[in-house]
Amino acid sequence: MVLTLDYTCFVRGGPQGEVGVDPEHLEQAADQHAEKLSSLKGKRDSGQLGFFDLPDDRSTMAACLEYAESVSGRFENIVVMGIGGSALGTQALHAALSRPLHDSRLPNDRPRLFVVDNVDPSLVGGVLRVANPETTLFNVISKSGSTAETMSQFLLFLEALKAAVGDSWRDHIVVTTDAQQGFLRPFADVHALKSFVVPDNVGGRFSVLSPVGLLPGALMGWNLPQLLEGAAHGRNRSLSGDFAQNPAAVWAACHHLLDTRCGVHSQVLFPYSHRLRLMVDWNVQLVAESLGKVDAQGRRIGPFPHGAVGATDQHSQVQLFAQGPRDKAFTFLRVLNHKDDLLIPDHPQGLDELAYLSGKTFGQLLDAECRATQLALTDAGCPNALISVPEVDAHSVGEFLMWSMVATAYGGELYGVDAFDQPGVEAGKVATYGLMGRPGFEQERSRVEGRKISDPNYRVI
Amino acid sequence: MVLTLDYTCFVRGGPQGEVGVDPEHLEQAADQHAEKLSSLKGKRDSGQLGFFDLPDDRSTMAACLEYAESVSGRFENIVVMGIGGSALGTQALHAALSRPLHDSRLPNDRPRLFVVDNVDPSLVGGVLRVANPETTLFNVISKSGSTAETMSQFLLFLEALKAAVGDSWRDHIVVTTDAQQGFLRPFADVHALKSFVVPDNVGGRFSVLSPVGLLPGALMGWNLPQLLEGAAHGRNRSLSGDFAQNPAAVWAACHHLLDTRCGVHSQVLFPYSHRLRLMVDWNVQLVAESLGKVDAQGRRIGPFPHGAVGATDQHSQVQLFAQGPRDKAFTFLRVLNHKDDLLIPDHPQGLDELAYLSGKTFGQLLDAECRATQLALTDAGCPNALISVPEVDAHSVGEFLMWSMVATAYGGELYGVDAFDQPGVEAGKVATYGLMGRPGFEQERSRVEGRKISDPNYRVI
Repeated sequence: MVLTLDYTCFVRGGPQGEVGVDPEHLEQAADQHAEKLSSLKGKRDSGQLGFFDLPDDRSTMAACLEYAESVSGRFENIVVMGIGGSALGTQALHAALSRPLHDSRLPNDRPRLFVVDNVDPSLVGGVLRVANPETTLFNVISKSGSTAETMSQFLLFLEALKAAVGDSWRDHIVVTTDAQQGFLRPFADVHALKSFVVPDNVGGRFSVLSPVGLLPGALMGWNLPQLLEGAAHGRNRSLSGDFAQNPAAVWAACHHLLDTRCGVHSQVLFPYSHRLRLMVDWNVQLVAESLGKVDAQGRRIGPFPHGAVGATDQHSQVQLFAQGPRDKAFTFLRVLNHKDDLLIPDHPQGLDELAYLSGKTFGQLLDAECRATQLALTDAGCPNALISVPEVDAHSVGEFLMWSMVATAYGGELYGVDAFDQPGVEAGKVATYGLMGRPGFEQERSRVEGRKISDPNYRVI
Repeated sequence: MVLTLDYTCFVRGGPQGEVGVDPEHLEQAADQHAEKLSSLKGKRDSGQLGFFDLPDDRSTMAACLEYAESVSGRFENIVVMGIGGSALGTQALHAALSRPLHDSRLPNDRPRLFVVDNVDPSLVGGVLRVANPETTLFNVISKSGSTAETMSQFLLFLEALKAAVGDSWRDHIVVTTDAQQGFLRPFADVHALKSFVVPDNVGGRFSVLSPVGLLPGALMGWNLPQLLEGAAHGRNRSLSGDFAQNPAAVWAACHHLLDTRCGVHSQVLFPYSHRLRLMVDWNVQLVAESLGKVDAQGRRIGPFPHGAVGATDQHSQVQLFAQGPRDKAFTFLRVLNHKDDLLIPDHPQGLDELAYLSGKTFGQLLDAECRATQLALTDAGCPNALISVPEVDAHSVGEFLMWSMVATAYGGELYGVDAFDQPGVEAGKVATYGLMGRPGFEQERSRVEGRKISDPNYRVI
């Protein structure tokens, strides 16, 4: 059971009418496929794109599972300190794959997971109050060991941990960081902390299948072999030399053509699934940080990734989608089989108008809404694609993750940008260091302090 | 202590440079202010725009508080069944104003709140397992009583409730619906259920300060008098005839000019606050559903509202914001005072690089990141505004809600569309009825069933 991509309504002249990819342009994209794919494969062969090979690294998976087994039953809480690529994949997979809390039909043998991805004191303090350090495992994730948000949390939780358990604090910490570089590696070594490696050639937003996501997954009981198998399957299809059989290439090429040729600058991922809702945030980072770039000609490029969740957003964003500017491309995620589906019961007397719902299931209703909304947006002339997901399980989720990552890397080839750097975040980082008084950033400090971008005498109400 | 809006960097020639509102256009907007405001006031005077007057309705607030007092201590869980405007405001206020769960410094006298805003069986079934009906109060919210998502949940929870508590099910249900119309009102009357009214002249996305949001708020212990006082204050400022002193009008006019004159079609609300993070989703519905319309000339118009949360999204979207197309307008929400701020502790030996963090607070770090990111986006030429929030409390949240609602209504005047209808969602709704076999929609059913928008022989991988 694998994913399928139906891109009929991405192409001009499909049922959605005239807004869509010109079939001739799509043929040109097919003609360029060999070249683009070979460029990607070349980078992979030269060792740059480690994410391609993560699904095959069964020994890292085994190490995560072995560690999880060794601490099984010991911790009530897992606190992951991470931000961006160190948080979003784990959050998305947690929503999709973790057994729902308090599911009384299953043994309650898994801890609670908190992914602390901000420095707001209300969040950090809240987790500190909820998660008793004595029964908590802390997983700090930072490739460089210098991420200000993650490391400030680490200082706080470390202090609380030492106060609570004394010398045995070392048994409550797992470090996920670079193999050699950065500040966390020597700290882990000195204290003989359990540690895992973020491979050098895997960037944060491509790292969900490394220990960044696998370790929390092992602790939470996700089916990791299935996850990697699905990812491997998705990777293999996404490397097909036959453009028409390569979902990642086709999805990327359509998005690229919609953006650059059709004025469709936004792309909306629209899962009809509560459990897949956080795939949206993971995908937003992946696309935004990879493709939002200045290209070689100095042009600012990149589509604006966005999300919606069905059926909820029918009551929020669909009005705009249906009647607003046709500058958005939609990809529906339709779930074909809802495990643990529920029957909508008989209506009571006096609510006869609801008779049509009784006897159907919630899964049927959700699916009808997905089909209905796709049809309505198609009739409104909005380009859209449909990814059918057999069932929300580790295999299909792994496959989707890999489709998205390969499609994004492929997008880098199409746009002619480096999909793996993020030079645009440096300025803000350096200004933060200046404002926080980090040594070596004194000049930045005076520059920033001296700047009055909010002149109180000017345009303030 | 009130909000301020600094729009210096929305205007061309500000520190952000050339992408921004032309000052002459802003003067024209000021010249048209009297006319736009008078049109809004006229609609209000004719009884159409009930949301303007909700802050003054202290008797409804008192009724909500009185009911909450009468059931105080009786329920462990509140389950709100609602979607769109019946859910988003409550979710946003819950994140902002509810005492964090398990805050051990406060008496644990408040129930848990679940807002069930989707029909995915994994969500509905999860809530059913977590919330024991015997100790749960169910608040069903639907103006018409025909919302398929909400009513199917209602059928399920009603059945579970009757099975659990027999005849006393009536004491576990509160109905929030229209005063006279719809299916829920007679049902509530027949069974003498406790009920509240959604005023006839208040649309879903403008209803957060009606019993839709006030009743859950009363049950959860939000400071409702402060919330309404802040809203009244915001409303009064937003009705100022002096354009330069009217934050809602200026915010709306800048967004309108950025969209229609400067190619800045997206607007990003960017709170630097964990507690304000869900204001984004509430605001997305408000703007998308109100302004995403076909105008009188048949043009598809409307900005694309979007969100980001600081500091988290610095590691996700800021790369695109800084280097991608300059087609996005940002509004930062900066919190000036973080209650319950936390000190970042001393760094341990071996992590000397973190010395600059020690002794600062998490609130200081978050604020430095907000200032740094605003500066970085300004230097990158991106139009942006800054709303300063004295503190995340009921007063400032109420003020912000009212600013946004008035700005959106004002936007309707500027774009020349009806900000209070949603004709674009009908097609999907009708198609759903068809697929679900609702009587009277047989024709739609055969139309929909007959449509093959996803032809399996065409463009499927």
